[in-house]
Amino acid sequence: MGSKSDLPVAEKAITMLKKFNVDYEIAVASAHRTPERVKDFVTSSDAEVFIAIAGLSAALPGVVAAHTCKPVIGVPVSGGVNLDALLSVVQMPPGIPVAAVGLDRGDNAAILAIEIMGVKDPKLSDKMKDYRKEQAEKIEADSKQVVADVGRK
Amino acid sequence: MGSKSDLPVAEKAITMLKKFNVDYEIAVASAHRTPERVKDFVTSSDAEVFIAIAGLSAALPGVVAAHTCKPVIGVPVSGGVNLDALLSVVQMPPGIPVAAVGLDRGDNAAILAIEIMGVKDPKLSDKMKDYRKEQAEKIEADSKQVVADVGRK
Amino acid sequence: MGSKSDLPVAEKAITMLKKFNVDYEIAVASAHRTPERVKDFVTSSDAEVFIAIAGLSAALPGVVAAHTCKPVIGVPVSGGVNLDALLSVVQMPPGIPVAAVGLDRGDNAAILAIEIMGVKDPKLSDKMKDYRKEQAEKIEADSKQVVADVGRK
Amino acid sequence: MGSKSDLPVAEKAITMLKKFNVDYEIAVASAHRTPERVKDFVTSSDAEVFIAIAGLSAALPGVVAAHTCKPVIGVPVSGGVNLDALLSVVQMPPGIPVAAVGLDRGDNAAILAIEIMGVKDPKLSDKMKDYRKEQAEKIEADSKQVVADVGRK
Amino acid sequence: MGSKSDLPVAEKAITMLKKFNVDYEIAVASAHRTPERVKDFVTSSDAEVFIAIAGLSAALPGVVAAHTCKPVIGVPVSGGVNLDALLSVVQMPPGIPVAAVGLDRGDNAAILAIEIMGVKDPKLSDKMKDYRKEQAEKIEADSKQVVADVGRK
Amino acid sequence: MGSKSDLPVAEKAITMLKKFNVDYEIAVASAHRTPERVKDFVTSSDAEVFIAIAGLSAALPGVVAAHTCKPVIGVPVSGGVNLDALLSVVQMPPGIPVAAVGLDRGDNAAILAIEIMGVKDPKLSDKMKDYRKEQAEKIEADSKQVVADVGRK
Amino acid sequence: MGSKSDLPVAEKAITMLKKFNVDYEIAVASAHRTPERVKDFVTSSDAEVFIAIAGLSAALPGVVAAHTCKPVIGVPVSGGVNLDALLSVVQMPPGIPVAAVGLDRGDNAAILAIEIMGVKDPKLSDKMKDYRKEQAEKIEADSKQVVADVGRK
Amino acid sequence: MGSKSDLPVAEKAITMLKKFNVDYEIAVASAHRTPERVKDFVTSSDAEVFIAIAGLSAALPGVVAAHTCKPVIGVPVSGGVNLDALLSVVQMPPGIPVAAVGLDRGDNAAILAIEIMGVKDPKLSDKMKDYRKEQAEKIEADSKQVVADVGRK
Repeated sequence: MGSKSDLPVAEKAITMLKKFNVDYEIAVASAHRTPERVKDFVTSSDAEVFIAIAGLSAALPGVVAAHTCKPVIGVPVSGGVNLDALLSVVQMPPGIPVAAVGLDRGDNAAILAIEIMGVKDPKLSDKMKDYRKEQAEKIEADSKQVVADVGRK
Repeated sequence: MGSKSDLPVAEKAITMLKKFNVDYEIAVASAHRTPERVKDFVTSSDAEVFIAIAGLSAALPGVVAAHTCKPVIGVPVSGGVNLDALLSVVQMPPGIPVAAVGLDRGDNAAILAIEIMGVKDPKLSDKMKDYRKEQAEKIEADSKQVVADVGRK
Repeated sequence: MGSKSDLPVAEKAITMLKKFNVDYEIAVASAHRTPERVKDFVTSSDAEVFIAIAGLSAALPGVVAAHTCKPVIGVPVSGGVNLDALLSVVQMPPGIPVAAVGLDRGDNAAILAIEIMGVKDPKLSDKMKDYRKEQAEKIEADSKQVVADVGRK
Repeated sequence: MGSKSDLPVAEKAITMLKKFNVDYEIAVASAHRTPERVKDFVTSSDAEVFIAIAGLSAALPGVVAAHTCKPVIGVPVSGGVNLDALLSVVQMPPGIPVAAVGLDRGDNAAILAIEIMGVKDPKLSDKMKDYRKEQAEKIEADSKQVVADVGRK
Repeated sequence: MGSKSDLPVAEKAITMLKKFNVDYEIAVASAHRTPERVKDFVTSSDAEVFIAIAGLSAALPGVVAAHTCKPVIGVPVSGGVNLDALLSVVQMPPGIPVAAVGLDRGDNAAILAIEIMGVKDPKLSDKMKDYRKEQAEKIEADSKQVVADVGRK
Repeated sequence: MGSKSDLPVAEKAITMLKKFNVDYEIAVASAHRTPERVKDFVTSSDAEVFIAIAGLSAALPGVVAAHTCKPVIGVPVSGGVNLDALLSVVQMPPGIPVAAVGLDRGDNAAILAIEIMGVKDPKLSDKMKDYRKEQAEKIEADSKQVVADVGRK
Repeated sequence: MGSKSDLPVAEKAITMLKKFNVDYEIAVASAHRTPERVKDFVTSSDAEVFIAIAGLSAALPGVVAAHTCKPVIGVPVSGGVNLDALLSVVQMPPGIPVAAVGLDRGDNAAILAIEIMGVKDPKLSDKMKDYRKEQAEKIEADSKQVVADVGRK
Repeated sequence: MGSKSDLPVAEKAITMLKKFNVDYEIAVASAHRTPERVKDFVTSSDAEVFIAIAGLSAALPGVVAAHTCKPVIGVPVSGGVNLDALLSVVQMPPGIPVAAVGLDRGDNAAILAIEIMGVKDPKLSDKMKDYRKEQAEKIEADSKQVVADVGRK
């Protein structure tokens, strides 16, 4: 994450990674304030996927991507303008993609990372299928609850 | 792709996939006009990664993601408004991520797909490192050309 | 509705439908997390009009429209960005329209549904005319109240 | 339509209505320049559905809706800003909905009108189902064409 | 004003008009819910200037302008989107202008109305010059206060 | 106007002023490049109304308003962003209003100026009523033309 | 600053200037309400750099720049729209630049001013290098804290 | 500049720098494709001011700023979205400012750089004052031309 203030978004990712029992390493490193630290972290890491979380002029995901050929997922963090972080993350120039997820969607970044690792590790894919079922069941349960609460003429 | 008119963006992806010698399958299938076709294509495919290309209210990437636990890359296609496709692709709800790349960036979608497949296949990662070098060399050459053309006081 | 969290917007619709004594059926079903559930609900329903309520990359109204030739009304739900849901609902591709109403306007979705059913059922149209009169009278009463409160030089 | 310059968008609607053999009446009438003309046209018409087409501060759909309890479909027309017409059409106040379709989508306005009339007239619904099939077949044909043209590795 | 909920913005205008001792008449009248009421109010009024206050798809200023050749000032009211009301008020079609002021700027609408009446009534212009001086003096006083509070190295 | 490049927008205003036989004086004067020139022009002018035309960060209308208590009409000029000029003109701080008209609407600026002068000069108001009739007749003629061209089933 | 209400943003600048022991002078002066005051302040000042802070149609930075050939830093102040101040500050016409920093970034305005003065005064540049180190160390400390708090699987 | 395609914007800067007889060095170096090249260029340069020109997710200005304590001017380059580059350049996080100028304003970037160097070198400031006069005279000449061309009633 680019700043300690991005922690609530990072925690959504961590919760999901723990749920899937996936190893992770976290760090605060700013593309603008500590560019060397970002480079060192990325080039020395043996991670299969990177998740970069940043707000405002969110250069971090792109700068991480500049230092690795592994997939980089970018999470724009909401603020006063929102379009700033969102567009900074998604509108990468040709040659160096970032996989952008939605504003503050640390959870989806983790799920995407797990889907990516699932290309190599079928057990993760199977767990993801189970999680999908869980989600679907939760929606069905929500639906029953809503019908019970709000009724139907 | 969601419509035949998205072909120029798809061709950027195809060019890149061919360059990396990666197998691919293409199809036109609309989330709104042929939802069953989308579902059948996705669920019967043995692809490791999906690239979904669509404009306007670009539901295709999300609908593809709804039918698979494999990574789905979404490419928003430019039009009269641009923010419509861009936001439709990136702002997915919790649980079902799409990996959004920039407007019309079929090339980056392919590179991201290759990076994802590289998690499993180190040869692809090596080729990507070579491609990065190529890009860097091109920029150095461009720089020399610009200095030669525009001069320096 | 695409998520239980859309209930406050759905309740505005329900209140209006009850006021007009119109039968309705509600459900939570997500275009992304439970696509089959959406399809089953829509194709098995004998509703004359569908109202689909969703936020973020609001694919639900379009996906409902993909499974029926009956009119589908889409209600974008507000959030951090707002233009995401609004544009996702209204900017449908040629061939599959959604009738978009304003952000969080569950009430207007119900009124529009009643107007549509009024094409077949003149009694509903008559009730709507009465409701219009009620609205107009409320505005006249508001106006008198405001003049009384704020005065006039 | 609010101005003669909106004719290209209106013609998309006319083409679709002719295809479905649906009677229609067209007129140019401006909410701002000829408010009485709008009122007279709307209140004297025996149309089941209105389609109002306008750009800029697109008041026409809302003003038509103010004079009738029949469904009113609004088509925002593109221009220098686009969000002006789009938001003017869709963001109606509580009580008086407009069914907004996408920017310049005269075709979708007509399809939505036909779907609405289909609530009363099952033959129109059946024709719409046929049109949907046509659309789906066109997409399948497009897909074959694309595969033939672009090939597959 | 288009709705009783616009009263806080209207009160800013009233405060200013009272300060300048200018006669005014207020009313709630909605372009969409009570179009005849708007027309009657405008055409029967002997006001020299109209101020129309509305949010969302803010048709009121334009509809007032449609019924009079006197100057009409439009005040967009803030809400969830803001650009909707702002663009609806300012982006009028050729032939029927509205004099748009800023979001929620009932005060500036009144000042503009007074400046307009000042074209005919020099005493109003003179009072406005005094008010300008008051404003300038307040800024000078604010400046001294700030320097006193925050100091200067 | 703030730059010679704004002339096409100014010419729309001039055409309208000539049509109404209203005296005018034109000048190029930039709020940023020639602030004194703006001040001198405004403070030495005996105009009843000012029209300020500018693009980008369109400070001119506000700076004109800062130097006079007469009504100032601001015309934002379109460019690459459009919202820049539009918001700069309309979002004035409390105390110093600008009467904003739509993007590139020099014609409407002139009409608004004439309406303002009509507060003092009833003959101008009468001419404006005639112009309104002309506009309405043109729309009726357009409508007949469209019906003749496009037909009616 | 253009208004006393901009003080919280100005205080961020003051805090930073004090930290670097840089002399400053503050004033409230409005481009619209006190244009002469702005001119007098700017033309009589012996400052090396100006920082102008303003919201809404933020003309102040541009108007300051109009009266000096020294560097002018503009700070847009957040409000209901945000893009209004941001675009007003950054989209200056050719010939008169403003150095725009981010929304409410009084701190960055001061840092930029110090960097500019550092061109002449190497001691300031050295202090800035120290401050950069401080920032980097803070991020490293934050990172350790986050790892300690959130752990690592 | 981040890409050879940004050359037209860079040439506006070069033209201005030549006019003021200021030494400059140009290079193409991408924050994403050649991050080391950017770092090497910046840290080995003896420039007093940097101008970084980039489009899309314009990370270059911020990345340049990360490697130097000298002033960095950022020029967003226009494209399909515009707000992406503009917000990426201006919305920098606290601690590392970029001096943003308007979209494609290479000329203003050079003028700002000259104003900054003028803090140290009074001759440059004097030349800038002359340039300002030139600009003002050009506007006066433009004004005369416009009056001559368009006339005055």
